Parts: sequence; C-alpha cells; structure tokens
Amino acid sequence: MKITPKPIVKDDTIETVVLNRRMVGDKMEKTKYKSDIEIAQESTMKPIFEIASKLGLSEDDLELYGKYKAKLSSDALKKIATKQSGKVILVTAINPTAAGEGKSTVTVGLGDAFNRIGKKAMIAMREPSLGPTMGIKGGATGGGYAQVLPMEDINLHFTGDLHAITTANNALAAFIDNHLQQGNELQIDQRRIVWKRALDLNDRALRKVIIGLGGPAQGVPREDGFDITVASEIMAVLCLSTDLQDLKNRLARMVVAYNYQKQPVTVGDLKVEGALTLLLKDAVKPNLVQTIEGTPALIHGGPFANIAHGCNSAIATLTASKLADYVVTEAGFGADLGAEKFLHIKTRSAGFKPEAVVIVATIRALKMHGGMLKTELVNENVQALMAGFTNLKKHIETVQSFGLPAVVAINKFVTDSDAEVKALLDWCSEQNISVALTEVWEKGGEGGIPLAEKVIEAIENQDNKFAPLYDLSDSIADKVRTIVQKVYGGKDVEFSSKAKKQLKDFDSYGWSHLPVCMAKTQYSLSDDPSKLGRPTDFTITIREFKPSIGAGFIVALTGDVMTMPGLPKKPAALNMNVDEKGNAVGLF
Amino acid sequence: MKITPKPIVKDDTIETVVLNRRMVGDKMEKTKYKSDIEIAQESTMKPIFEIASKLGLSEDDLELYGKYKAKLSSDALKKIATKQSGKVILVTAINPTAAGEGKSTVTVGLGDAFNRIGKKAMIAMREPSLGPTMGIKGGATGGGYAQVLPMEDINLHFTGDLHAITTANNALAAFIDNHLQQGNELQIDQRRIVWKRALDLNDRALRKVIIGLGGPAQGVPREDGFDITVASEIMAVLCLSTDLQDLKNRLARMVVAYNYQKQPVTVGDLKVEGALTLLLKDAVKPNLVQTIEGTPALIHGGPFANIAHGCNSAIATLTASKLADYVVTEAGFGADLGAEKFLHIKTRSAGFKPEAVVIVATIRALKMHGGMLKTELVNENVQALMAGFTNLKKHIETVQSFGLPAVVAINKFVTDSDAEVKALLDWCSEQNISVALTEVWEKGGEGGIPLAEKVIEAIENQDNKFAPLYDLSDSIADKVRTIVQKVYGGKDVEFSSKAKKQLKDFDSYGWSHLPVCMAKTQYSLSDDPSKLGRPTDFTITIREFKPSIGAGFIVALTGDVMTMPGLPKKPAALNMNVDEKGNAVGLF
Repeated sequence: MKITPKPIVKDDTIETVVLNRRMVGDKMEKTKYKSDIEIAQESTMKPIFEIASKLGLSEDDLELYGKYKAKLSSDALKKIATKQSGKVILVTAINPTAAGEGKSTVTVGLGDAFNRIGKKAMIAMREPSLGPTMGIKGGATGGGYAQVLPMEDINLHFTGDLHAITTANNALAAFIDNHLQQGNELQIDQRRIVWKRALDLNDRALRKVIIGLGGPAQGVPREDGFDITVASEIMAVLCLSTDLQDLKNRLARMVVAYNYQKQPVTVGDLKVEGALTLLLKDAVKPNLVQTIEGTPALIHGGPFANIAHGCNSAIATLTASKLADYVVTEAGFGADLGAEKFLHIKTRSAGFKPEAVVIVATIRALKMHGGMLKTELVNENVQALMAGFTNLKKHIETVQSFGLPAVVAINKFVTDSDAEVKALLDWCSEQNISVALTEVWEKGGEGGIPLAEKVIEAIENQDNKFAPLYDLSDSIADKVRTIVQKVYGGKDVEFSSKAKKQLKDFDSYGWSHLPVCMAKTQYSLSDDPSKLGRPTDFTITIREFKPSIGAGFIVALTGDVMTMPGLPKKPAALNMNVDEKGNAVGLF
Repeated sequence: MKITPKPIVKDDTIETVVLNRRMVGDKMEKTKYKSDIEIAQESTMKPIFEIASKLGLSEDDLELYGKYKAKLSSDALKKIATKQSGKVILVTAINPTAAGEGKSTVTVGLGDAFNRIGKKAMIAMREPSLGPTMGIKGGATGGGYAQVLPMEDINLHFTGDLHAITTANNALAAFIDNHLQQGNELQIDQRRIVWKRALDLNDRALRKVIIGLGGPAQGVPREDGFDITVASEIMAVLCLSTDLQDLKNRLARMVVAYNYQKQPVTVGDLKVEGALTLLLKDAVKPNLVQTIEGTPALIHGGPFANIAHGCNSAIATLTASKLADYVVTEAGFGADLGAEKFLHIKTRSAGFKPEAVVIVATIRALKMHGGMLKTELVNENVQALMAGFTNLKKHIETVQSFGLPAVVAINKFVTDSDAEVKALLDWCSEQNISVALTEVWEKGGEGGIPLAEKVIEAIENQDNKFAPLYDLSDSIADKVRTIVQKVYGGKDVEFSSKAKKQLKDFDSYGWSHLPVCMAKTQYSLSDDPSKLGRPTDFTITIREFKPSIGAGFIVALTGDVMTMPGLPKKPAALNMNVDEKGNAVGLF
C-alpha cells in the first residue's frame, strides 16, 4: 500500500489571510485601535515582588530577571509542594483558522476576569519561540488588553529557557558526533542517528544538511538536520518533568541513535545526562510575570503541538495550582490535538485533574467550517455559521466524553454581526451548552467576567468524572484507534508497513505502555486540512512513528511535519528596531 | 611562492600537560588544596545591590539576574558617562604555555589588593564560553581565592549575552539564505558568502557542512560552516561598541558576502541591523558581579584573541573607569597579541588611555622559554630560567615602546624554588625592572598587595607617554610590518599572492584606514609555535586577510585558525551534574 504523506505544518512563507481582529465593518481601520505593543508599553507594571507577595511568596522565593520577571527558586517550589491544589481550567478551541482563534488572549482575559470577581487566580502559559517572532508578525503573549507583560522580553530572550534548551540539545549532538570521532565504543550506526541539532529560528536551509566534511580531523561525515528548538525532545522533556531529578531521569532515557544491532542508544549510555541537567537547572524553574491587570502568570516551556504535546510545563501548572484557587492554562491548536494531549499525556504524567474545559470559538472560524471562503468571512452569513456549528459540537462532545464540563467562549470580533451572535447563542441554548461572549481583547478582564461566571457555574453544578479514553496498557495501535474514533470521529486507522514494523520493534524495546502523541493537521478533525466542519467516515493513516522516550510518548505521524519553519519573503524582522532609549520597536 | 600554513590554535583534543598549580614538590598533592568550585561555593556573596551601592549606584540602576548578578541599566550608563575617569591598568603576560600563566587570576587578585590598601578599584574581564567549559576542564573566572562569583553561573549561561550573540549571528545567516531563496535581489554570489553560523559549543563536525539540501523548498544548497560564538564578528562588534547606536552602525557595516560584481554586501544592504540590534539590546549592557573578597567586577564580552582583539567590552572598561579610581582589565594571550591589540585597537576605538601594563610571568613558563621540556618543569633549573628571561625582556620593551610603564608580576607556584625566585628578582633588580611576587591564588587580595603597590608607584613615578606604534593612515601592509618588527622583533613580513590581491581589493573598498588584528600563535613571538624565548631574524608570513568591517579591523592570518574547537576523548561534561539541591557539581 502506497501512502502519500499529507502536509501538517506548512512552511510559514505560505501567504495566509490574517483576519485582523481590529477590522471594523468591512474596512481595515488599523488606526482605530492601538497595536499590541503600544498597549503593552503604555501599561504600568508592578514590581514582580509585589505580584509574588499577593501569592504569599517572599522576595527570597524569587530569582529576579530585571524588575518584572522572576524565576521561582527551588526552595520556593519545595515549600509550596504540600499545599492544597486549586482548580485547573483548560482553554482549548475548535479547529482553528490559520490566524488562530485567540486562545492565548482568552486565557489571559479569563485569568484577569477571575481576579476581577474576587477569585485568587493565576495563568499558566507557553513561552514563545523566537523563530516565528522574527518571521511572521504575531505574538504569543495574548493581545489587546489581555496580554502578559513585559511582552517584548517574553517574545525575545525572556529568561533564557529556550537558549538553555538549544544549548543542551546541541551539546548532546556534539557529544554524539564526538563519540563517533573518538572510536565509537557504543557502536552507533551513523545512518541511524535520530538526534537532530536545533536553533530557535526559522531557517529552512538547515533542514537537511551534511556535516563532518573536511577530512578525518573534522568529524565523521553524515546526514543531519536542524529543528526549531520548540521541536526538540528536550523541550517536551522539560515540560513534562515534575522536578530536577525527574528531568535528569527523562534526559537519560532519550533515544539518540540505534547501534549496529539496531538497539536504542540513549543519553544514559553516553553518560551525559548530568551535564545536560546542569545546563537546564535554571530553565526548569517556572517564570513569573503579570498581565496588564496585574494577574500573576507563569510562562514556562512551549513544545510543538504536533510532534509534542503543546502545553506549558507541568511544573508551571502544578506550581500555579499551589499558589492560586483557579489556574487558567491552555494547550496548542484545537481540542482534537491540544486538549486530547493535555488530558491523556500531561495530566497523567503530572498527576492532576482538570475541573473544566473552555472551548474558544470565533464566528469567522465557524463560518469557514460552514463552507465560506476565507476572503469572504467579513460578510454576515448566518447560514454558513449555523452549518459550522457541527465542528464546535464535536469538540464539546469530546470534552464531555472525558467526563469534564465544557464551556464555550465566543471570542467576539468587531466584524461579528448581531444576527450571527444571536444565532450562535440561540443554538447553544437549544443544545443546553454553557456559553459566554468574551470581549477580553478590547476590555481586558471586564470582558471575560461572563465567561468566568459560566466556568465557576460549570465546576460547581456539573459532575466531574474525569477519566482518560484509553488505558496505558492498551496497545499503541489501539490507543491511536481510540483517539481517531472517539476524539476525531473517524471510522478507522490504517498503518503503513513501516509503522507496523516499528510497532513490533517498540514492543521488543518495551515502549508499548507509553501514551500516543498524534501529529495531525490542526485545521481539520481528519488528517486532510481541507475537510472542515465535522467530517465523518474518514480513515486516518499513520505513516510513521517517532518515539520520544524521554518525554514519555510515541508520536504518531499522519503526514510530513515541518519541524523547522522558513522565513517569508519579507520577514517581520525588517520592521524591528530599538529606539534611542533602547526600547523595542516594531516587534508587533 | 608556496606558503605552508602553520596551525595557530590546535584542536583541543590534543593532550596538553596541564601544570597544576596545586602540585607540591614533585608530587601531585591534589587533596592538599581545595578545588576552585569548592572555594567558590564556600564563599559568602553579598547581594549585588550592596556591591553596587559602594559604587554609588542605586537599585534602580540595576537589572537583576538573581541576587548576585546584575546588568547596569541604560539610564545608569548615561548617568555616569560624564564622570571623571579612573586609571585603567592592563594585565597581560609573556608568551604562555598551553596551561596559561594565570592572567585572569592575577587580574582578580590585583583588583582585590587595590581594595585592601584602601583604593576604590574595579575589575573588567571577559565572559567565558561554554564550549571549552564542556570540553576541557578549566574556568575563566580566576582561580583559588582570586575568583569572581557566582563562578558556576558565569561559566554556564550567565546573563545570556553569548546566547543573544549566537541568536543574532544565526538570525543573520537565516536572513542571508532566505534572501537567496526569495529571488536574490542583491545578487549575492552564493560561493562568496563569508558569514558563517555559530554555536557556543565545541563541535568539530560543524566546521564544514553543506546546507540547503532536499530540493527547491529547502533553500539553496551551498557550503557553510559553524564557528564557536566567541569567534563571531558580532562578539567583536559588541565588545568595541560604545553604545547602542554605535552597535547598530557597526552591525550595519558588517560584510556578509560579495555579489556577482565582487562588491561587498553588508547587513545594512539586507536591512536587518535593527532586528539584530533588538536581539542584542540587553547583551550590550555590562554585567556586575563580585570577587570572593567583594570587589566589584564587570564581566562582559569575550572575543577570540586571534581572529579578534581578545578583550572584554569597551563599555565594561569605560563604565568601570567611571565608577572606580583603579580599573584592572586583561587581554588574551601574551603581550605580543593581547596587549598589542588592546593598545592599537581597543583604546583607539573606545578613546581612553591606559596608565600601566602588568606583565604576568611564571617561573615554569620562563624555564620553558629557556629550553626545558614541559614534563621537567617541576624540577629546579636556574640556568634554564635565566635563559628564558629574554622572552620577558622583549615584552617589557614592547610595553615601554608604547610609552607605558611596565610592571612584572611573578605568579608564584608552589613548585617554584627559592633559588629560582631569587634569580628572577635579582635579574629584574639589575635591569631596573619593576617587579612583584603575587600569591593571589592562595591568599587572595593579600597576596597581590606588593603588586598593587608597584603598580601605583609606576603610575605615579614613571612618565606615561602613551602613543600607538602605527598611524591609521599607514597602509595595511605597513601596519603589519610595524607590528612584526616592533612588537614581535621580527625581520620582515611576506605576503602571499592571495594576501597581496586582497590588499588591492580592500583599497578599492575603502578599508585601508582600519587597524590590523593579527592572528598568530600565542606560544611564540614568531609565527612558529616551537620558537620559544626571543627568536630573531624571523619572517612572518601573512597567508590571507579576513576583513571585520563591523568590528573595524582587518585580520591578518599567519596560519590556519581553528574557529570551532573539538571535544576531547573524555569531555569535562562527563563529570558534570547537579546535586539534590540543584547546585552545580563537577564544573571545575
């Protein structure tokens, strides 16, 4: 059987129609609203120790990075570990458009809203990657009046976590090539080295390279490639570790190559897990910042949402849950990917139970699921909107199948017509779906209060019978089948001959007990990005598996995943600068 | 004429006999003395704001990185700019052995000694590179009781400066390859791209690579290579910039390639100097730390001492001179390289005048210059020692030829015999050379007081007629000739036909007014590492030039320079770890 790989992540040079949330009517009125960076730079931040003190933390619990960023010290993390846990709320979305549905913005705004109604709340979010920042305009720190600050720092080097991961990733690569050079005691098959190098940049020219050229003193020539840092297994490992020792154990388990006997060679075999842990000893501590409204936020870790699980670090989520009564956190892409992985991988690995799931939907994306063209989404079309409800409905059912309450957040845009909003609210009411309009981009926490109230209501009134959809003791193939049928609504799964062969090998290596991490397009419930709405009767094809033994999951690939993006013709970097005071200019 | 390149920097896999300063008699008594990291971790640091307040800085002037590291804010730098400048003292050395002569240790100890005798003193030093740290055991933060703290942090990620430089270097590389991919408007000749990628690691397999493989969507295939980050021109640019605007101007001037008309293509042509400056806006601020004795130290920047100028940043030296009456700073390798570049490149570019030069010598290195084998240096040999004085004498003459007072610091080792020490002191006395024994490794600042007193005496009693040995209006060839004859004591210079051709091109590009940066072996005054002592009648061969137009110098290469080291068979990383509290273990 021949399987044609379908692209999952497209090169970000491909032009996308970015649906600007600041469009007014059918015109782009860019001047009417301030840009994210303007709003951010006009905001007054409190010193981070003030934010920390509201959480019961002292200055000694902080390792400051400037006045407005801090890592929580190891001692602080130990001190709070025995506290009672607050309620964790996951923010996810319907299958998104290329522009995203504003999940981060809703996450920030919901946290702010909880605080506005007198609840002690915190936010836990992913940290942005520099590559996309330099490539395509667009932040990862929320937007409008629902942002985390200082947005310039967070979107640039922040506290150096990604640089530490890049360094550890590439130090490991250097240790592997040095092992080949110095006699190859472990009998590593240089054709079967699976560990790639990494940079936190968009750099297509590094996707496929040949290294070690120039003669015997310059290493052993071989094929290699670079991933963007957020695609490094070390990022996933860091984000699933619960403490430094767990981090070291996971690093030691990472498979970097296979030897001539086709047996896995690990970091532990190379004896460098201690050095890698040393390089990551600060990166593993969560970063405390604040929203525009002063809500404390932990921004920590940010793995890919296809070849990894797409959630901020377990340490950040667990820490936030010890410091606040309500923790708002997010997972990448739509509920079929991010929420499924959050619920099957992260909660299981970190040992906690979420209380509710918010599903972000936008009217424009629902209209696309209902058949409208991207270019026409600014026009009112209630019929298309209603046709698109099927996509939202499927995600609600999925969340409920995990035994969790679902609340729909309509992330309102100025282009949404009253008739469209009414149609969506009416439908939710008919279907007995908990729903709230959110206007956090324009109004901050105030615009998220209806959502916060619905979430509290859902937690208090609905039963929480959280349980995963598959058992770890199920076979890898059965785990994939469960996800395809119960989460995607598909008919069945096909495995390529390569994938079947891999499953046999994994069994012999003792890896079959691991959860599955699906790499699939985010645009559709199926593995075909053009099938919008709620496709049925489809079959998902698993082309290949990629073991991430340190992270603790088996990635199931349904197509080619681009793990190193490219730059567009006119990168966002062309507009970037510093002013005479040293402030960032043109970042967003 | 055929020119055989001579190696300048050897791959650090080559075994060197490290002459441990803790050797006692003819036996290695490793247990008698504590290791550097043990001494460092037993020391009590003061909060960095206390150190800053002694300098007249407030907490608002600092951007804290944890409790014991801080960057000085842009506002603080502006505030102090108009203050009167203190006296800058350069620490350099004779031609070193592979183990180094303890220049950093003497620099730290001398700063401590000034403070002990009631002078307001500061230290300005280079920041270490991670590559050598993970490769060969050995810190770059002083040693024994003359160290800067926190040594683990400084030797690992510190405040992220090197990571920011790595990122800017590789972002630029990605912009270049993206330019090729998107139509190559600037007509860049892909065979003549001179900008390489960089990592702050020892990784020989990346020295020569082919990138852009995999078809039209994956970039334009071409030869490329990686340097270690400290060899990036951006490191040299950052270290010679005097403020953010100067940094941006220098970045814009960097030549990254030549077009099909063989004309230089610059960062300014690519229009990304703003983005690169944005990535470096924090890295350009100097880092404040403290010595074991609480002396304030600015540790900032660390370019290679062969293909670059080998000094900490101009901003750090200038800032220290505004905050203290005495600034002790260092330059890489011996006086023929580091001091020459400090005096011809750094002082000229940054606009300041040094007051005195300390030349560090060790008895073991002088004995090597006198003909002893490395393996026998632990044995007393007054005759060899006296034969080696010629090397020291030449460096004293060089410093004096710049119109500056020279003071010799004998960095005492426990293996030095009384007779050897006496012979050296007697010789200095006969020659009317200012000299002091230093025992800062074992005694900290106390062990450096005699040296501090000699330095003050030299500054107060000797005339300072500082002047460079060549004018910027001299031709590049004449500048090289002046250095060879006046600094190295050589007979003449030969230029390869390639080098001659390059000089013509440089003239047409308008680069002839730039100073020269010599890349030569550090072990000998000549370009032959085996010619120890004071060779005469030698000719230096310039194989090739490498323009660093952003940094503002023309590198003259006398041999192959290794700009990406390799790892040894058993990298230091194998011993590295973290303890259960998260502290660094086995770092040094």
